[in-house]
Amino acid sequence: MPAKTSISGFPEWLPEERMIEQRLIETIKQQYELFGFAPIETRAVEQKDVLLGKGETSQEIYLLSRLQAREDEPESDMGLHFDLTVPFSRYLLENRGSLSFPFRRYQIQKVWRGERASSGRFREFYQADFDVIAENNLSIHADAEMVQVMHAATTALPIPPVIIRFNNRKVLEGFYQALGIENFEKVLTCVDKLDKIGSDGVMSMLEESDISHEKALKCLDIAKINGSTLSVIQDIQDLGLNSSLLEQGLEEMTYVLRATQHIPGNLVTADLSIARGLNYYTGTVAEGIMQGMEGSGSVCGGGRYDNLASQGNFKFPGVGASIGVTRIMSQMLEHGLLSCSRKTPACVYVALVSEAMRHQSDAVAQALRARGIACEVADTAPKFGKQIKIADKKGIPFVWFPSLEPGQGHSIKDIRNGDQQDVSPTKWMPPEQDRQVRIIKNEKAWEKLGLDSVLKR
Amino acid sequence: MPAKTSISGFPEWLPEERMIEQRLIETIKQQYELFGFAPIETRAVEQKDVLLGKGETSQEIYLLSRLQAREDEPESDMGLHFDLTVPFSRYLLENRGSLSFPFRRYQIQKVWRGERASSGRFREFYQADFDVIAENNLSIHADAEMVQVMHAATTALPIPPVIIRFNNRKVLEGFYQALGIENFEKVLTCVDKLDKIGSDGVMSMLEESDISHEKALKCLDIAKINGSTLSVIQDIQDLGLNSSLLEQGLEEMTYVLRATQHIPGNLVTADLSIARGLNYYTGTVAEGIMQGMEGSGSVCGGGRYDNLASQGNFKFPGVGASIGVTRIMSQMLEHGLLSCSRKTPACVYVALVSEAMRHQSDAVAQALRARGIACEVADTAPKFGKQIKIADKKGIPFVWFPSLEPGQGHSIKDIRNGDQQDVSPTKWMPPEQDRQVRIIKNEKAWEKLGLDSVLKR
Repeated sequence: MPAKTSISGFPEWLPEERMIEQRLIETIKQQYELFGFAPIETRAVEQKDVLLGKGETSQEIYLLSRLQAREDEPESDMGLHFDLTVPFSRYLLENRGSLSFPFRRYQIQKVWRGERASSGRFREFYQADFDVIAENNLSIHADAEMVQVMHAATTALPIPPVIIRFNNRKVLEGFYQALGIENFEKVLTCVDKLDKIGSDGVMSMLEESDISHEKALKCLDIAKINGSTLSVIQDIQDLGLNSSLLEQGLEEMTYVLRATQHIPGNLVTADLSIARGLNYYTGTVAEGIMQGMEGSGSVCGGGRYDNLASQGNFKFPGVGASIGVTRIMSQMLEHGLLSCSRKTPACVYVALVSEAMRHQSDAVAQALRARGIACEVADTAPKFGKQIKIADKKGIPFVWFPSLEPGQGHSIKDIRNGDQQDVSPTKWMPPEQDRQVRIIKNEKAWEKLGLDSVLKR
Repeated sequence: MPAKTSISGFPEWLPEERMIEQRLIETIKQQYELFGFAPIETRAVEQKDVLLGKGETSQEIYLLSRLQAREDEPESDMGLHFDLTVPFSRYLLENRGSLSFPFRRYQIQKVWRGERASSGRFREFYQADFDVIAENNLSIHADAEMVQVMHAATTALPIPPVIIRFNNRKVLEGFYQALGIENFEKVLTCVDKLDKIGSDGVMSMLEESDISHEKALKCLDIAKINGSTLSVIQDIQDLGLNSSLLEQGLEEMTYVLRATQHIPGNLVTADLSIARGLNYYTGTVAEGIMQGMEGSGSVCGGGRYDNLASQGNFKFPGVGASIGVTRIMSQMLEHGLLSCSRKTPACVYVALVSEAMRHQSDAVAQALRARGIACEVADTAPKFGKQIKIADKKGIPFVWFPSLEPGQGHSIKDIRNGDQQDVSPTKWMPPEQDRQVRIIKNEKAWEKLGLDSVLKR
């Protein structure tokens, strides 16, 4: 049962759930660092004009005001960030002189969207971003690497395989140009819905937007193309349209297809129906969905943005993506896919013989901690049976019984199976599998989603 | 040079600084977990009445409003949390049925204070809290443990020794009661300033508050008492005043003094001038300052709060403290005490022979990453000398040169000393000290603060 949320859209977790979230974040961090991304954090707030300048087409922003603002005080112009890309661009320009380019950073923080309470959407959630931003030019290699990092990071997580679909805005825009369509943002919005509303739905949407039936059919034709091999490029060319932008896009798409050929299991495919909602993307766009949970939407997404940041004559093209940690968490919990081997980091509950003998239990705890074993000392000294029950309720696997009289030995009980043995506080170590909290994949829940073959891999 | 802050009070760090902050947080987390505290996070926002109900005497709160609020929408009643204790109490009551008591949790998050921009204070900062909350009764043992955890966590950090001073509100209030002083909150405020304004200053402040000269002298007498042994208790009793509250407080103080006797170097002392600003404290209060930087204020603080949370007839007394991560960070950076062994997690910069040979560099990177070695592949392929310069500017210690022709070997260069050797991507390991980013104590800066003896310990 997840923690109760007394304000909708602001999820909170119980400790045993938070430990899962911590593990997800730690795993993503390790993967990003393996690729040489360096950590930063930006403040939660940005100036309103920075937030409104670029980014979402319709920003849902929380503005701040001081409770104790004086009457003559100018209104606050600050709001909470709604993503991590816009703050990163601002940070990059401010610290340009202290950074080395191409600058590779990762950033794992909460973001906020000022949605209506009734929307059912998250209003606070974790994103795990990585981006590389260059001065003036950033090679297409960065686009391919983005897909590789998305794959590496999601594969390292204890979640269903993530299928990454990518596209290239230049291909679509170049294709629409060749078709003579001006309002391509509108077309992108329609086409992006192919998964949800099907061909007929997209056709009616396009025709409602004053796109002729013939052109709409062409838009649908290209949107239906997908695959993991270079035949995708051939399929697009077979549609018989041409523009220089389209050609440039196809070249980039070819590069990314080639660079991701080695990834097994069709986990990376080109998919011409992917558009991504953010209007700052200019080339490659990508998103990932979890196998077996395709209906729950994407759990990661990103792309190239060539024009987000600039300073004087300098441009700072970037490529990066974001993993939706909170979205993954909520899916894992909703379907019961993961659980924790215990409800607390404590591995040992040190029992208390009596209040007068507390120094003895404290000494045991100190000896265990000195060797990295997490433990908790009983708060009061009821009978040992009662103390075992308390430990059990806390989900701590071992109870330590200090010697009752000087000269007598200590003993420890594994309360999961009742095994008890004589031990020394300076020597005993928990079995390997109990040293740290473990994340457990619940087989039945995975089977229910048809993911048993993945589990056994 | 720290990252530039374009909004005052909202500090941001460069990657090499953020890596120090990450290490501080990771170290505190480990220590809290060794004591069996379980992790939670609460949402950044609380309902206004929760924020205003308890806590700071004069809350500096940021309120939220939706940019896109409709006209008929009721005003938002949410604000950003200003500490982690108030949210924790709320969370505890909401999730009471799923938690085991006494509930021990830690929580490391940012908090926000809606201070005026000109105040020079932090408006966003990290706190690392640990607390234990019980149902109805929480033994004095928890107070002693709080001091022990504060000591253990701050000692594990690469910072100057933290001197922890503690007091007990019951001792002070019981003493003032016995003196016949009603308005003891006012007296606490004055006495708390002893460090800053001295005896004369406190005397005038007290007399301005309508405390008679004789009573003010007594208040000053007790405030001047401090020490690490039980003589402190004797000194207080020698002042010849008595009340049942005072006696209860002295008993608690005796317990904490006894339980912390084993901590060496006078790092824990009772100090009757410590009051702490928060009005929810009811017994033990404690704060820590860094040796050699006493003027910079406390870096951790906490205490017992018996009345913060209640539900029906149930009371939930708690004890806990907070380490001010951002305050510590800013002090470390300001005095140049710490630095990072490199500016990025990347240990190896894989050079690029030519764009056509990129697959070769990618393969090297993949082999290194598979063995946990963080690396970055060159973005473009200028001459090797240029690539070495780029790696150097990025602060990456090793540059990898893939074979120029099939059959030829790979080599790696330590660009700090120029050493070059032939290596294999599946076998080479960086020297132990270069595997992870190291935090370095800058000897000269420590010496300058008179902390050289600490460094050598």
